Amino acid sequence: MTITYSQDVAEVKFMGFGKLLFKWRGSVYKLFWRELLTWLGIYYSIAMVNKMALCKYPSLRGVFEDFCVEVNEFSNYVPLSFILGFFVSVVIGRWWNQYMNIPWPDRNMLFISLYLRHHVTDKDSDGSCRKKECQKCKKAVSYRRKLVRWLNLAAILTFRDVGKVLIDNSTHLLKLKTRFPTIEHVYSAGFMTESERETYDSIETTQLKYWIPFTWYINTLNRARKEGLISSDITLDRLVNEMQGYRGNLGMLQSYDWICIPLVYTQVVCVAVYGYFVLALFGRQKMLGTEDCSPLNTTRVSDSDEHFYGILPIYTLLEFFFYMGWMKVAEQLINPFGMDDEDYEVNMIIDRNLEVSFLAVDTLHNVSPTDSDDEDIW
Amino acid sequence: MTITYSQDVAEVKFMGFGKLLFKWRGSVYKLFWRELLTWLGIYYSIAMVNKMALCKYPSLRGVFEDFCVEVNEFSNYVPLSFILGFFVSVVIGRWWNQYMNIPWPDRNMLFISLYLRHHVTDKDSDGSCRKKECQKCKKAVSYRRKLVRWLNLAAILTFRDVGKVLIDNSTHLLKLKTRFPTIEHVYSAGFMTESERETYDSIETTQLKYWIPFTWYINTLNRARKEGLISSDITLDRLVNEMQGYRGNLGMLQSYDWICIPLVYTQVVCVAVYGYFVLALFGRQKMLGTEDCSPLNTTRVSDSDEHFYGILPIYTLLEFFFYMGWMKVAEQLINPFGMDDEDYEVNMIIDRNLEVSFLAVDTLHNVSPTDSDDEDIW
Amino acid sequence: MTITYSQDVAEVKFMGFGKLLFKWRGSVYKLFWRELLTWLGIYYSIAMVNKMALCKYPSLRGVFEDFCVEVNEFSNYVPLSFILGFFVSVVIGRWWNQYMNIPWPDRNMLFISLYLRHHVTDKDSDGSCRKKECQKCKKAVSYRRKLVRWLNLAAILTFRDVGKVLIDNSTHLLKLKTRFPTIEHVYSAGFMTESERETYDSIETTQLKYWIPFTWYINTLNRARKEGLISSDITLDRLVNEMQGYRGNLGMLQSYDWICIPLVYTQVVCVAVYGYFVLALFGRQKMLGTEDCSPLNTTRVSDSDEHFYGILPIYTLLEFFFYMGWMKVAEQLINPFGMDDEDYEVNMIIDRNLEVSFLAVDTLHNVSPTDSDDEDIW
Amino acid sequence: MTITYSQDVAEVKFMGFGKLLFKWRGSVYKLFWRELLTWLGIYYSIAMVNKMALCKYPSLRGVFEDFCVEVNEFSNYVPLSFILGFFVSVVIGRWWNQYMNIPWPDRNMLFISLYLRHHVTDKDSDGSCRKKECQKCKKAVSYRRKLVRWLNLAAILTFRDVGKVLIDNSTHLLKLKTRFPTIEHVYSAGFMTESERETYDSIETTQLKYWIPFTWYINTLNRARKEGLISSDITLDRLVNEMQGYRGNLGMLQSYDWICIPLVYTQVVCVAVYGYFVLALFGRQKMLGTEDCSPLNTTRVSDSDEHFYGILPIYTLLEFFFYMGWMKVAEQLINPFGMDDEDYEVNMIIDRNLEVSFLAVDTLHNVSPTDSDDEDIW
Amino acid sequence: MTITYSQDVAEVKFMGFGKLLFKWRGSVYKLFWRELLTWLGIYYSIAMVNKMALCKYPSLRGVFEDFCVEVNEFSNYVPLSFILGFFVSVVIGRWWNQYMNIPWPDRNMLFISLYLRHHVTDKDSDGSCRKKECQKCKKAVSYRRKLVRWLNLAAILTFRDVGKVLIDNSTHLLKLKTRFPTIEHVYSAGFMTESERETYDSIETTQLKYWIPFTWYINTLNRARKEGLISSDITLDRLVNEMQGYRGNLGMLQSYDWICIPLVYTQVVCVAVYGYFVLALFGRQKMLGTEDCSPLNTTRVSDSDEHFYGILPIYTLLEFFFYMGWMKVAEQLINPFGMDDEDYEVNMIIDRNLEVSFLAVDTLHNVSPTDSDDEDIW
Repeated sequence: MTITYSQDVAEVKFMGFGKLLFKWRGSVYKLFWRELLTWLGIYYSIAMVNKMALCKYPSLRGVFEDFCVEVNEFSNYVPLSFILGFFVSVVIGRWWNQYMNIPWPDRNMLFISLYLRHHVTDKDSDGSCRKKECQKCKKAVSYRRKLVRWLNLAAILTFRDVGKVLIDNSTHLLKLKTRFPTIEHVYSAGFMTESERETYDSIETTQLKYWIPFTWYINTLNRARKEGLISSDITLDRLVNEMQGYRGNLGMLQSYDWICIPLVYTQVVCVAVYGYFVLALFGRQKMLGTEDCSPLNTTRVSDSDEHFYGILPIYTLLEFFFYMGWMKVAEQLINPFGMDDEDYEVNMIIDRNLEVSFLAVDTLHNVSPTDSDDEDIW
Repeated sequence: MTITYSQDVAEVKFMGFGKLLFKWRGSVYKLFWRELLTWLGIYYSIAMVNKMALCKYPSLRGVFEDFCVEVNEFSNYVPLSFILGFFVSVVIGRWWNQYMNIPWPDRNMLFISLYLRHHVTDKDSDGSCRKKECQKCKKAVSYRRKLVRWLNLAAILTFRDVGKVLIDNSTHLLKLKTRFPTIEHVYSAGFMTESERETYDSIETTQLKYWIPFTWYINTLNRARKEGLISSDITLDRLVNEMQGYRGNLGMLQSYDWICIPLVYTQVVCVAVYGYFVLALFGRQKMLGTEDCSPLNTTRVSDSDEHFYGILPIYTLLEFFFYMGWMKVAEQLINPFGMDDEDYEVNMIIDRNLEVSFLAVDTLHNVSPTDSDDEDIW
Repeated sequence: MTITYSQDVAEVKFMGFGKLLFKWRGSVYKLFWRELLTWLGIYYSIAMVNKMALCKYPSLRGVFEDFCVEVNEFSNYVPLSFILGFFVSVVIGRWWNQYMNIPWPDRNMLFISLYLRHHVTDKDSDGSCRKKECQKCKKAVSYRRKLVRWLNLAAILTFRDVGKVLIDNSTHLLKLKTRFPTIEHVYSAGFMTESERETYDSIETTQLKYWIPFTWYINTLNRARKEGLISSDITLDRLVNEMQGYRGNLGMLQSYDWICIPLVYTQVVCVAVYGYFVLALFGRQKMLGTEDCSPLNTTRVSDSDEHFYGILPIYTLLEFFFYMGWMKVAEQLINPFGMDDEDYEVNMIIDRNLEVSFLAVDTLHNVSPTDSDDEDIW
Repeated sequence: MTITYSQDVAEVKFMGFGKLLFKWRGSVYKLFWRELLTWLGIYYSIAMVNKMALCKYPSLRGVFEDFCVEVNEFSNYVPLSFILGFFVSVVIGRWWNQYMNIPWPDRNMLFISLYLRHHVTDKDSDGSCRKKECQKCKKAVSYRRKLVRWLNLAAILTFRDVGKVLIDNSTHLLKLKTRFPTIEHVYSAGFMTESERETYDSIETTQLKYWIPFTWYINTLNRARKEGLISSDITLDRLVNEMQGYRGNLGMLQSYDWICIPLVYTQVVCVAVYGYFVLALFGRQKMLGTEDCSPLNTTRVSDSDEHFYGILPIYTLLEFFFYMGWMKVAEQLINPFGMDDEDYEVNMIIDRNLEVSFLAVDTLHNVSPTDSDDEDIW
Repeated sequence: MTITYSQDVAEVKFMGFGKLLFKWRGSVYKLFWRELLTWLGIYYSIAMVNKMALCKYPSLRGVFEDFCVEVNEFSNYVPLSFILGFFVSVVIGRWWNQYMNIPWPDRNMLFISLYLRHHVTDKDSDGSCRKKECQKCKKAVSYRRKLVRWLNLAAILTFRDVGKVLIDNSTHLLKLKTRFPTIEHVYSAGFMTESERETYDSIETTQLKYWIPFTWYINTLNRARKEGLISSDITLDRLVNEMQGYRGNLGMLQSYDWICIPLVYTQVVCVAVYGYFVLALFGRQKMLGTEDCSPLNTTRVSDSDEHFYGILPIYTLLEFFFYMGWMKVAEQLINPFGMDDEDYEVNMIIDRNLEVSFLAVDTLHNVSPTDSDDEDIW
């Protein structure tokens, strides 16, 4: 689920961003506490081994401590923040573009509601048909409902493709969350009729089939045009063009799913960050001084380190928070159709679109508030 | 309120930006003086404790000063400026895009004024109806007024959504500032008629309802088209399409409100900056030398620090100004529909749009300056 | 005036950019010589005081020199180049976008010239009316001239708003430069007729009124359509739509004037840069050694500094050039409608647009080169 | 082939990006193992020579070690990460834009299917022709098939141009992979008819000819319009306009192929990275101490380096991974129509487009699921 | 001429970018060898003077060497890579946008070929006129040829403006390269007819006149429309609109030529880079030790520097390559209509456009491959 906190930061207050630190859902703590615990575990194990075992083998210890000192210098050579900055920029750009391509039926549904109707030519009427049980009106209703249903259907088919691995390989828990593991579920949820499903299944191709409802869409528009429910080529063209925009969004979502950020880039970032902290396991070890063992080595970092370093590597923890947190931003956003706290709430979007689009083309079709004398108001 | 200072920097002068430093409203001082005072308070408390209490417990002091020296090194490890640079870029991008999506009725009102009118076919006329009390003209006026009112209504409904927490939870002061805490207020301010409000309330859905006036909009357009007040499908299509652009802006504002910058990113930035200054409370402490206590520790940063460090941590203050100020830029812009000095003046926008749109479709409809002989001029 | 130098760098030559260094107009030298002289003046004053007065008060000198050493370390803590890089990126983006929104009448004038004319239906003609003193032709000419005049008028009204403070508060010199200090001047320069000015003034509103000529514009289009000078709704719609694009540009210019870069951001950058050089006044002082006074302090930066430091702080000057120059880029571009060397030449643009638009709709209307046999050529 | 891994990172898990490190196809390891092995080989050769040969010539060794120490300092002077960050940003931008310009026939095929058909005017029909063996229907089918075939043909001609060097100079292996080495192959694969090929070959020009099928396209549209298979100028205009969008994409692909990132930029990046590692061959050599030879030089980096440095230059390897990997990102993406693991699967795209476009205009033309009572469902 | 190397990097190979280093045309070596030789010459002259002359004047040498040590520290203070990164980003953005605005007649020529023709209404025909010597067809051919010629003419006039200084001031060599030094040449090359040239010259204005052919363009369209060669207002509007897009591109090219990157920005970058290397002339000098003169100074950088520094300032050379090369990227791209190796091949573009546009509207007009039975193929 998306974490919305914009109201919490509506005003700059004392420690304005501070209160955001105490959120758990979608927080950085939730995302990396496992890595942190693991890292601390290994760090203290090494420290223990160093203190317990190595004191007895001075020469081995010398080698170990030399190694630690050496790798500690590494941190000055890898500009982690630079590559993270550029990488996260790319990821955030893609993340927002994917949101921009989530298909909303709002444009289509308003155009459909206006253009696809029984066009009464009677001069006296106010533009709507007054007859009860008018066959044309009923047909128009049926067409309108079909069209918006197909829009929603195509969106669902796309979301299934974009999240298709979840459907096949994932655990029971995820399966519950995903509403449409098979095309069967789409059918039984009422997004397809029996005959549509047959038609859909009868097309054998190895390609993605999410665009098939749009062929029905245009055929239906053609019928409506021929039957006079769409009054001119101009309005027909608008209806098709808007549908094409909707279809284009679906195609873009497929593209973002297919063309990831190049694997090499992700790997380089990942190796840099993980490698940095693996080396930090050694480089930030406390160099044991004379109090514990005999003096083996004169290259101790500084006297003051004796006191705190071994107990809690305090600024390595802050580095961990900083760099690992930054990378987790990328990790969370790289596929926004997953199950992360920040991922788009696809189910909510599907429900919203379905409800709103049927409201617009059916319930609210031709409903206007009764006229009143506006002059009173303004 | 927006702080407009572009005229102050119209020309590059001696110390051109300098004069901007003496503004208070919307300034960086106003934004962070609380944090600064707090930080200084704690800093001097720690210094006091160090000087008063710890001198008596040399071993404890050793531990304390070691800790201070250690954390001071941290500042070289966290590239604050890097993450702030990238983060603020994202925030400023979103801030400007939100401005770009503020709906202005200008395009719509001009198209409505031109296309929705009594189209006189009389050859002799100059395009406007000369009859007094013409029924068609009156109807056209009524429709035009309705349409622009609904445009404004939809904008208000959206602004209420975008700022909805303010309406429910906030203090009395804010309530006064927000003009439309409930839908009742929208009605009594004259943006809705009685029957519209009933229709609006009768639609029961958990989804946002800001798009509902647009269904009335298209139904009214349909009536006008059937009654001949809109002369062709081309002009009808233009009117709907422009309305869709307006509606799209409203939808984008809702999206920006719903999909924030990922919480993780904000948290990482926030922890980095706050963490930096929490550590600086210790790391920038004056190491007490021999004059006060007995010499405990030889790792004092440098002799010169004795003189100023303890009195005023001068460059830490500048860092505070710099980093905290940069973060406050983000904090102020992250929700531009709040109550900050820099936030968009929604009330002013609502008033302007209302006034201008009624002027255009009503008062100025068909008003042209009388013809004169242009040839004289050019 | 804009500094155009693209021809000077058309080719990469030896020291290609080098020759740009010898330009004065619009140059970095012109922009900051006052700051530079001021800084040097203060710097040498402090050096003098240090050498003259402080030698006599060793303890005071100790404090002074400690302070200098300390602040010198500050320069490693403030990443000026980083914040300047990001800030200048934002400023340059806005600067170019403002240029992109400068309204050019070219699209409009060509459409007007083609679509708003006496449409002769005579089969034999070549598309233009052959009658002398044709009333319809004269009316079309009058309309075309009005429309482009209003386009120019709206642009001037906008430019006056964008530069409005100049008109009221500024010195005599600037007033001369600005051509239209009052609406009276716009009228007497012939951009408005008497009746237009009356109509314009009669509309009382606190809002900007630059959009009012566009209401006349559409009313005139309506008349032309009804009189058959515009042949169809398609061409009418094109004319309105192009006008809307033009109007949209004007609106964007108003927006850029109203919504500045947040004051906080500008202040933070400004404090960082100015603060840096204020501290550099002390931090880059020559530490006086034993030859002048008695040795007070052993923390002198290095022996070699004795020789040059006090005479000319050579690399501080280069830093000054670099950072101050970079900030001046921002200062110059932040309001491109001011009076800087690089600011857009609004007067030139107004003149160009006026001349070109009347040429297109009047002089060159229906002027084609006589037919010749193209076959000869190709 | 494109490496799709978005499903692997759908959720932030423990070591979420970690599992991506174990992929081989498209991985950073696969891309640079040759460089790595070569570098290590040379590094150890130099180390060997140093140890074996130079010990005998102390003066020569002194020169050698001085050189090593000197070049080691170089690494602090070249900000590799900075230029790589900016360069990779440009490359990734171009890479994605090229993907965005890959032509998909989806928009065109749906418009063709809807607009280019036998428009039955019979009132009773449902919009489709019921006659068997209707001549008009057959002609429409033939036209539709031609049009989409030409769309695919133009795409293939473009892909051949974009990858034209591959066709002529490359090894046998690549030739197999590329399906259309000559125009003959395009013909025999059925994308051109005999007469089309003759027409195509008969146009003699040194310019690219990929746009020629579009001249046939518009001529065919003209015929269809005259024969009544396209019902109005509005729909005709839509068909041409969509084709123009498709053609524009092809033109952009040609542009990206023609206008590379300036060679200078690529060279500077390349010299910086390669130069860095060539110097690292010397700079990261172990300075041999007293145990092997007699002490020649006192400027050894640090005592601890003796132990590990000569055996494995551990952090130089990590630098190698980091910088070389980052540059490989650029190298892989700079021409996305090559044969890299990440390059776009042109063959797959061609096949998909061919299959889908014929499905849409032929098989699925006028196929609608039979009507059912939608009311049951919702 | 543009350097196209995308085929050389189609695949990631061993040392993939390496082979690009051996190109000369458009290479970084070609661009800066003059600067490099000059720098080396001065560097060695200073070294010589130091060694020869200064040894005799120890006090002067002390001053000289102190100066050298001091300026060497400067390199740590100027973040060259940062400002270069941001500046080159801006330059590359403009460079690509200018390419995007190069006008291609492809869209226009296809629309002209389709819409401007003898529209036969004969039912039996296949859409093209069968009459020999049909007057209407001949007229349509003549119009089509004129229109595309004017498109090319306007492009040439623009390219002359964008490169106008070349025409007037430049050397003989450049004059040969530029094909159209005067309007006379444009005429004699056949882009204008006699009467067009007269009309063009007769318009006296100080403004740019590249837009004048477009006024003829619309007048010709008007005639064609009235004569029935353009069948409807919809197709007329499309033709004008496409022409406007083409004209808009020309206007943008003029804008990019007029509004350069602010001179200040270029100067700051230029001073930073040149200043850096001027100081490096001193800062990277070998400090002469005891072997040559008597020991004057103990602040020598390090003993090892004695051996190589004086002979070849190896890493300064690499810095030179790196920073100067990066700046040369900017220098080369800042005016892409010059004569650099990477600049757009305007002549080639003019020739291509001319050839292709006449092919499309004349030779290939109404040429379709003969029908064949497509069914065989697919």
